[in-house]
Amino acid sequence: MNYNQLFQQIVKKQSFLCVGLDSDIKKLPKHLLNTDDSIFNFNKEIIDATAKYCVAFKPNIAFYESLGSDGISSFEKTINYCRKNYPDIFLIADAKRGDIGNTSDLYARAFFEKMNVDAITVAPYMGEDSVSPFLAYENKWVILLALTSNKGADDFQYFEQNGQKLFEKVLEKSQNWGNKENMMYVIGATRAEMLAEVRKIVPEHFLLVPGIGAQGGSLQNVVEHGMNKHCGLLVNSSRGIIFADNSEKFAEKAGDEAKKIQLQMKDLLIQKKIL
Amino acid sequence: MNYNQLFQQIVKKQSFLCVGLDSDIKKLPKHLLNTDDSIFNFNKEIIDATAKYCVAFKPNIAFYESLGSDGISSFEKTINYCRKNYPDIFLIADAKRGDIGNTSDLYARAFFEKMNVDAITVAPYMGEDSVSPFLAYENKWVILLALTSNKGADDFQYFEQNGQKLFEKVLEKSQNWGNKENMMYVIGATRAEMLAEVRKIVPEHFLLVPGIGAQGGSLQNVVEHGMNKHCGLLVNSSRGIIFADNSEKFAEKAGDEAKKIQLQMKDLLIQKKIL
Repeated sequence: MNYNQLFQQIVKKQSFLCVGLDSDIKKLPKHLLNTDDSIFNFNKEIIDATAKYCVAFKPNIAFYESLGSDGISSFEKTINYCRKNYPDIFLIADAKRGDIGNTSDLYARAFFEKMNVDAITVAPYMGEDSVSPFLAYENKWVILLALTSNKGADDFQYFEQNGQKLFEKVLEKSQNWGNKENMMYVIGATRAEMLAEVRKIVPEHFLLVPGIGAQGGSLQNVVEHGMNKHCGLLVNSSRGIIFADNSEKFAEKAGDEAKKIQLQMKDLLIQKKIL
Repeated sequence: MNYNQLFQQIVKKQSFLCVGLDSDIKKLPKHLLNTDDSIFNFNKEIIDATAKYCVAFKPNIAFYESLGSDGISSFEKTINYCRKNYPDIFLIADAKRGDIGNTSDLYARAFFEKMNVDAITVAPYMGEDSVSPFLAYENKWVILLALTSNKGADDFQYFEQNGQKLFEKVLEKSQNWGNKENMMYVIGATRAEMLAEVRKIVPEHFLLVPGIGAQGGSLQNVVEHGMNKHCGLLVNSSRGIIFADNSEKFAEKAGDEAKKIQLQMKDLLIQKKIL
């Protein structure tokens, strides 16, 4: 999926919501736990209930990897299920990978060939050759960590050289590696006050914004400072949607929560004259 | 395995070699490709041939993940094979993980409970809460990326605030999170000139040093600037050992290469009065 196709989906669905499939086995509704592949069964129902309200799904691979090869198999089945039933959905593997060049090649092969997602989150610490192998694939995306939503972001991301913070350096430098057609950035919703600074450096790129809901970020603030004329935002919610309810009606309730956010997003898209 | 036990192994084996099991399916000897689980079969022979010359094995999980759930299964079988046959070997998952706290929890569960390795490499960009979940396990280790061996290390790791480089900040700051009993650092052999600086900040910690062999770093330089009185080094070689030969004698040749390095290491340990 390219930049313009993603924007068209946002307009069509009146939504820039990404649903995070952080399907922690310890939090699944009890009635699913004795089924054949409980994580995949959970995901399938969540996907069916929320797909019409969102433009992207983002499974965080940690929740699958914690179950070893069985978990990776659930991840693969989830991706295949989306591809088959919802071919217009943008699929993000939230993996935060990054290694020396010949090894990042292998991660790119894993996620873009074997698992066939559209995008992968990548950590910037190891620099260009850890990122560029992912950029060699047409219509695939790197989503580079810039300013993350967690408390630990304060430890190194604000480290400053001659008035430039490390996350700003990451935004600036990485524009030599890719462009708005193959690169996005993670900017936490809990850091919305920095979005204006971010937009000075990357006015056109899409930003993946986690941290609304359970982590406390505000959608209104994110839009105020981060939206551009092609929307330029994918705002993620995970726990607030997928674990909204723990009964047999969990999927219906997840759909309700996703719809609530989608309606807010629609209003904001209208306010910003994108719809 | 704790700090002292690791040091005892180094003394006993007269080696501080770590063999990197970067078992790229595209590079395996041809005669193995039609076997039931070619990567595991390759690893088994490499492990049997090199175990007496090294103190650690370090599979880089990218080479397994690129094959999806089958690859993760090969990884798990490899770890189990080591645990059963070589219980004194230190096992490192080279995974370069790191995510927000509740997600790093899951990675810790994956690698320390499900896969039962001794140590995992972790990327520092997201700060304390992305690292600390791994430190909650007794006798398990975080190996934090500090100064990596690749060219891209220049992009951000030398970013400097008031005379302190980012990798130095990582070394300094992370000492509030862990100690020499549960934390090591990655310092590339190709950056051996910086080891004296590194040792000023972390005199006692173990350093995991990749980059000799195929990447061009020198063992002599690493020891000169990086060794401490408990050795304090695990020096990794991957491709130079495991792909030394591509014939049916690949394992024998891998053993020869590992032995060559072990003999150099023995001399260096004697020179430094550790043996």
